Amino acid sequence: MIARVIVTPKPVVNDPQGLTVKQGLASLGFREVTDVRVGKYIEVNLEGSSEHEARRRVEEMCRQLLANHVIEDFQFDIEPERKRR
Amino acid sequence: MIARVIVTPKPVVNDPQGLTVKQGLASLGFREVTDVRVGKYIEVNLEGSSEHEARRRVEEMCRQLLANHVIEDFQFDIEPERKRR
Repeated sequence: MIARVIVTPKPVVNDPQGLTVKQGLASLGFREVTDVRVGKYIEVNLEGSSEHEARRRVEEMCRQLLANHVIEDFQFDIEPERKRR
Repeated sequence: MIARVIVTPKPVVNDPQGLTVKQGLASLGFREVTDVRVGKYIEVNLEGSSEHEARRRVEEMCRQLLANHVIEDFQFDIEPERKRR
């Protein structure tokens, strides 16, 4: 089971990292860029349990550790089985 | 037009941040977690241009600034129009 979690700064929160990336892109000639927000991507591999249970556990992980609820939002999806090549 | 870019450490590259998160989760009782990888999530808002052109430009942004090709992989998708509430 694999969970893909995306943690982003809340829209009202300043994102200096995003601003820096935007300026960097502008200086490279990407002037069509109007806004950049930078967040985290976290891939969590989980053993066993049902998809429903995994969803509950990952939500708990986000609340307790992965995201800071005051300044960040999170979203995730669960992939029942990791595809191996 | 909005591009959602995910940058992850290549599978062969050490990910000390992911290891730390894994250990943190374990100490909180999430012992079903077998592996964690931490990457970046970058949301880029772009003006005008077609989806095809946006795809080409964002690929270029990833190569030039957003990802370090030696140690990171990237993937992205383009959403033609940002949904407003």
